[in-house]
Amino acid sequence: MTFWEKYYHTTKNNESYVCLGLDSDLDCLPEHLFKSGNYYLEREESVSKIFDFNKEIIDRTKDKIAAYKLNFAFYLSAGIGGLQALKMSILRIPSTVPVIIDCKAGDIANTMSKYGKAFFEEFNADAITVNPLMGEDVIEPLKEFQGKMLFVLALTSNKSALTILKREKLYREISRNIAQWGPERHGAVVGATNAGELAELRDLMPQTLFLIPGIGAQGGSLEQVMKHAVAGGEDPLILINSSRGIIFKDRSICFAEAAEEETEKLRREINTFL
Amino acid sequence: MTFWEKYYHTTKNNESYVCLGLDSDLDCLPEHLFKSGNYYLEREESVSKIFDFNKEIIDRTKDKIAAYKLNFAFYLSAGIGGLQALKMSILRIPSTVPVIIDCKAGDIANTMSKYGKAFFEEFNADAITVNPLMGEDVIEPLKEFQGKMLFVLALTSNKSALTILKREKLYREISRNIAQWGPERHGAVVGATNAGELAELRDLMPQTLFLIPGIGAQGGSLEQVMKHAVAGGEDPLILINSSRGIIFKDRSICFAEAAEEETEKLRREINTFL
Repeated sequence: MTFWEKYYHTTKNNESYVCLGLDSDLDCLPEHLFKSGNYYLEREESVSKIFDFNKEIIDRTKDKIAAYKLNFAFYLSAGIGGLQALKMSILRIPSTVPVIIDCKAGDIANTMSKYGKAFFEEFNADAITVNPLMGEDVIEPLKEFQGKMLFVLALTSNKSALTILKREKLYREISRNIAQWGPERHGAVVGATNAGELAELRDLMPQTLFLIPGIGAQGGSLEQVMKHAVAGGEDPLILINSSRGIIFKDRSICFAEAAEEETEKLRREINTFL
Repeated sequence: MTFWEKYYHTTKNNESYVCLGLDSDLDCLPEHLFKSGNYYLEREESVSKIFDFNKEIIDRTKDKIAAYKLNFAFYLSAGIGGLQALKMSILRIPSTVPVIIDCKAGDIANTMSKYGKAFFEEFNADAITVNPLMGEDVIEPLKEFQGKMLFVLALTSNKSALTILKREKLYREISRNIAQWGPERHGAVVGATNAGELAELRDLMPQTLFLIPGIGAQGGSLEQVMKHAVAGGEDPLILINSSRGIIFKDRSICFAEAAEEETEKLRREINTFL
């Protein structure tokens, strides 16, 4: 299935525009996972618990989400074992659900082909995030990967995005590029914290799928997002991401239940605006 | 040893400003590595040959270089085994030689801490390349990693860097930021293909260490680089990178000898300008 087939499958069947971020930081996992009787596991064994954690979250939330996003850095920081957990977690996700690896890759052409091979083939992602600083060379070599999607950073949710991306309205030019590269293969990462620019970004990219981080922990307002970023056509063309706010809501033995509840809450909240 | 201690160690002892890029693309390695008698190795076993290849190159060139740069994408594209090869290759490099992982990381603060942990601690790099599109948040969390160096993309060597980085002279603002963040921890990636901007970049960053890709395969001129990018003080503050042009110069059984010769040639060529 292509990215879009999966997207339409989950958004219709689950009636959901929630993108659940599996930013499964080893240092934040529920403590009980690392205990065996009265003993704590060694570091190496601990890393395997990242998958155990994700498995429970995935099994509980897979019917309530539109997509999963896995932040590459959180897995890589746990070393080779962390990447094994990344691979296994993606295999655990039903093959009808879109998987986004958040890696913000951006490099020259021959290197981007290698990132494509890595994320789309070795790790089996349906989409990745890309950084457009180096221009069209970043996008071009990924065309060979059929049915895959790229989410290009347009205006990110962090404060210092102001200094570069808002300088001389660079985000406008990037947004025009994204629209021009074509919405079939190119989505946009649009931070929810930029309430003042959301409507403008949607005007610049009327048919583009927006991946929207920044609600919850980062302080963006869901209401503002739903008011300004939703597309005019039949499909809202949004994926509202939440990570820490859901997966670490409750760090007791009931973490997966709590994550399910939070996902459901966000799903309904989004849908009240549609 | 800190990055700078290693840098001064190799540049003095090896009298070299060559940064050798170990972009050890599995698809380009010498064919004989994959043969055992009349048989070709299976894919999984092949991946282990990345380390064998690097080992021979490192052992032959370690007294002729200033640093090694390993492009993360080339290892990641070979999957988990590729990352094992990356880790082992870095362990093979003498601990007095600076190791740069070229990953062009750029994300929000909590994610950058994870990249720092991954590249500096799990993979034992002395430096990484970073993408400044998201602003100072990218740099800030990496301060906790003592003795490590960041090479920030200022003006890259690819053609489409024009569209974004040369727009309204964005590279000037980034260069000013790099200088202001301080040359002790922040170098700059400056593409050799931008002959017209090299002198300006050096003016903007007089005390910054330049990591300069783009000579050789990408068409940049060493003469132009040496004329315009060398710093005015006692140390030239340059690392001239060459990758494919050296490691894949000869893909016969004599590949390591050929790489040694090419490294030595570049080392001498650079030094004639100093």
